[in-house]
Amino acid sequence: MSPTSSQPISQIEDIVAGYRVLAAHGIIDAYGHVSVRSQFDPETYLLARSVAPEIVTADDIITYDLDSNPLDAEGRDSVKERFIHGEIYKARPDVTSVVHNHSPTVVPFSVTGIQLRPLFHMAAFIGQGVPLFEIRDFARDTDLLVSNPTLGARLATVLGDAPAALMRGHGAVVVGENIARSIGRSVYLELSAKMQLQAMALAWPSGEINWLDEGEVRASAPVQDYYRAWPMWRDKALAGLKSARGTSKGKKAKGKSRK
Amino acid sequence: MSPTSSQPISQIEDIVAGYRVLAAHGIIDAYGHVSVRSQFDPETYLLARSVAPEIVTADDIITYDLDSNPLDAEGRDSVKERFIHGEIYKARPDVTSVVHNHSPTVVPFSVTGIQLRPLFHMAAFIGQGVPLFEIRDFARDTDLLVSNPTLGARLATVLGDAPAALMRGHGAVVVGENIARSIGRSVYLELSAKMQLQAMALAWPSGEINWLDEGEVRASAPVQDYYRAWPMWRDKALAGLKSARGTSKGKKAKGKSRK
Amino acid sequence: MSPTSSQPISQIEDIVAGYRVLAAHGIIDAYGHVSVRSQFDPETYLLARSVAPEIVTADDIITYDLDSNPLDAEGRDSVKERFIHGEIYKARPDVTSVVHNHSPTVVPFSVTGIQLRPLFHMAAFIGQGVPLFEIRDFARDTDLLVSNPTLGARLATVLGDAPAALMRGHGAVVVGENIARSIGRSVYLELSAKMQLQAMALAWPSGEINWLDEGEVRASAPVQDYYRAWPMWRDKALAGLKSARGTSKGKKAKGKSRK
Amino acid sequence: MSPTSSQPISQIEDIVAGYRVLAAHGIIDAYGHVSVRSQFDPETYLLARSVAPEIVTADDIITYDLDSNPLDAEGRDSVKERFIHGEIYKARPDVTSVVHNHSPTVVPFSVTGIQLRPLFHMAAFIGQGVPLFEIRDFARDTDLLVSNPTLGARLATVLGDAPAALMRGHGAVVVGENIARSIGRSVYLELSAKMQLQAMALAWPSGEINWLDEGEVRASAPVQDYYRAWPMWRDKALAGLKSARGTSKGKKAKGKSRK
Repeated sequence: MSPTSSQPISQIEDIVAGYRVLAAHGIIDAYGHVSVRSQFDPETYLLARSVAPEIVTADDIITYDLDSNPLDAEGRDSVKERFIHGEIYKARPDVTSVVHNHSPTVVPFSVTGIQLRPLFHMAAFIGQGVPLFEIRDFARDTDLLVSNPTLGARLATVLGDAPAALMRGHGAVVVGENIARSIGRSVYLELSAKMQLQAMALAWPSGEINWLDEGEVRASAPVQDYYRAWPMWRDKALAGLKSARGTSKGKKAKGKSRK
Repeated sequence: MSPTSSQPISQIEDIVAGYRVLAAHGIIDAYGHVSVRSQFDPETYLLARSVAPEIVTADDIITYDLDSNPLDAEGRDSVKERFIHGEIYKARPDVTSVVHNHSPTVVPFSVTGIQLRPLFHMAAFIGQGVPLFEIRDFARDTDLLVSNPTLGARLATVLGDAPAALMRGHGAVVVGENIARSIGRSVYLELSAKMQLQAMALAWPSGEINWLDEGEVRASAPVQDYYRAWPMWRDKALAGLKSARGTSKGKKAKGKSRK
Repeated sequence: MSPTSSQPISQIEDIVAGYRVLAAHGIIDAYGHVSVRSQFDPETYLLARSVAPEIVTADDIITYDLDSNPLDAEGRDSVKERFIHGEIYKARPDVTSVVHNHSPTVVPFSVTGIQLRPLFHMAAFIGQGVPLFEIRDFARDTDLLVSNPTLGARLATVLGDAPAALMRGHGAVVVGENIARSIGRSVYLELSAKMQLQAMALAWPSGEINWLDEGEVRASAPVQDYYRAWPMWRDKALAGLKSARGTSKGKKAKGKSRK
Repeated sequence: MSPTSSQPISQIEDIVAGYRVLAAHGIIDAYGHVSVRSQFDPETYLLARSVAPEIVTADDIITYDLDSNPLDAEGRDSVKERFIHGEIYKARPDVTSVVHNHSPTVVPFSVTGIQLRPLFHMAAFIGQGVPLFEIRDFARDTDLLVSNPTLGARLATVLGDAPAALMRGHGAVVVGENIARSIGRSVYLELSAKMQLQAMALAWPSGEINWLDEGEVRASAPVQDYYRAWPMWRDKALAGLKSARGTSKGKKAKGKSRK
């Protein structure tokens, strides 16, 4: 049985599109990952095997339980940092999609103690809080990777009920109650970080920036659901995928049955 | 009857190209919009339905009266912020095209109180004034969207007879007496904002920048009509559109007749 | 007779490639131009008609005398600023190619009085001097365009024997004893401006930057002839051109014979 | 006999892919080079002839001894700076791949004395040291090129046992015990330089940045081997190469036999 046949094609396609959308936006490089909680069993989640995001296909998606044990690996390698996903799904029943990225303009914020703050309506969710995960608070001399359940649980605790958290010297984790939100927030977190960097340069030395206020964050964050963006991003990503899949699928399926 | 058959193909094509040109230049993201005043009835204007700009086609264009009531929606959703367009067309008889965008380097200016000033001849129109619309002056605890006629009218008042206005924490509105101007000014407003940010960094701490003077603005602004750029941008955008339209139009038309 | 038939195909192809290479590098936008001195008659030069650089083809090239009168326009419009080219060819017998551009990171230098200085071996020519043309020294209330012979001659005087000059609030003019140099210098002038902007930010507040010294400029500038880059850039640009030319040439030629 | 037939296709393909991957990432411009130590004879190395990186094919690869004498040039021109490679292979038995680049955000660091420091786990190797090669310490009035064995040996001495060294006003040299490392480190050195520039701007004036500490560098650097990235980059580069090679190879081979 194919490792993907037990999952509906639409959720698999969503996750494949998610990887490719983030790669196309420069939010994930050859690393970074996107997961969704299974719509059939909320105690499991879907995540790609250890492969570069830009080339993820449906054949790369593995199902995990919330302790991040693979349920259908069939010889495929799991990513070391899958515990980010499992532990957040445990701690946050409202979350059905998690993104881990190396968002390039977000990393500088993570090492300077400068708080990301909301200044652009499309990223109003930043006003709901973007805490900083300092791995050194929990373990010394690490490679900065969240590569075990304990660190994953610590990260989930730091995240709390926020929409995203920075990971010092590493990147960010971004969550949502659906994949449009986890992907959309990832795209606009990076853009907002760029805008904040520029606004801080412009405002120097007074430093006065007109942030969204609490009432505006409360009004804007729920509205900004990226529902106009996501279908466009998704369709474009899946269109780019089709020709490649058409030619390579037969060969790949054969390779697997030989294992 | 098709919702577009009452409009000449060239004006429809202009607006479709406008959306795609701005998306290609990174001036509008999955949001933002372009409208034109109808050449047949100046008391109506054309604007795309609620769909991501990069995928707008002729089938997405809706006609509105100046109170922003759709006249031929046929079930298509209108964008919430169409009042930006309607209220500006009411207040500015000279304007026949309006762009609303999230121009990324313009947003930082909108939250710092740093005035955009003219320094590049291609964006000399900035010297005619780019006022700031602070939505908080008119409503508290908003989602920053100009989603009703009152806010639209306030924005039109702030715009006055200027070629563009910043919208705090949100983006900009840019107008022109034709679409070449509204699109061209949008492209060069973003570029000029980048140049100003760099010039301010270079000039620090003296802050001395050699802006275009009044006489230069007066001489340059009318000349910079983007008439050499617009046909190239337009043709490229429409060329990219052709193949897609050829294959998808039949299917779409059918979908509509079923409503 | 075709307006291009009196010129060898290779020089025409060079100039067409030049326009497209600079557009691909973001050095010229919808405006800007590239000329070469005719290899058959040094008292004439070749420049494209008034058309966006990205779509220039061989059919767009016009021959001018050094007073910038078109010799074979056949109804095609000349660019207003052709006097930049003609007057420099008069003043500089060593120059056989001239580029006028709106190089985006160069403009901020032109309005701040911050001198471009050599810090990167590929742009060592900057050490030979990059003077600033302030149009206000010669005419008030202009549109900043060098649109008559007098302003062209003034620009040529400011340029002197330098490889390039900045034009305040406008862009730059870059020259070379061949097109590889005028194009290569244009590409690396922009890159060096970016590097200098970053170096100045890094070096703040000491401002200490380790510029190339005079001996290094003397040794580097002649070596950096862009002869490894130019054929690659040229071939890529002409390859992109071929399919379009194949389909459109017949139609265009016909259109012309009807005039 | 073809100059490449004595080398296994996989190592040749690696080096061709390396050139193209770095060009695609903007790490090398029309200049810069990638070499590998021959897997058959560690006293020789492979490097492309003097040609722009973006168009390197298998036919362009030349074998050199460690004194950088070409062994199978067959009339092909060698790059002037090949001594960078030969002298490093002599001094560093652990190194099997060397990259020389003009990494654009690295050059500004090279001229300001600001040390690159580790802040991003993907570029943790920076914590192992990135010394600065100041050519003026060894020769005056140069064109900055490492164009003889003596300068190559000096550069190797400055590099010491580090993973990379900056070359003042010129670029960088990056090494690895395999090509995944030399290419991956080149990509992430540039990205880390960008992040450091932004972090320094954000942290101004306190200047406090939370660098990776020694324990983290020790734990991270070995893990970051770019083994997930390299196959993706390589495959994409070689896919882009195939069609071109299919059509041009026959002609090229003929051209060579005529020499």
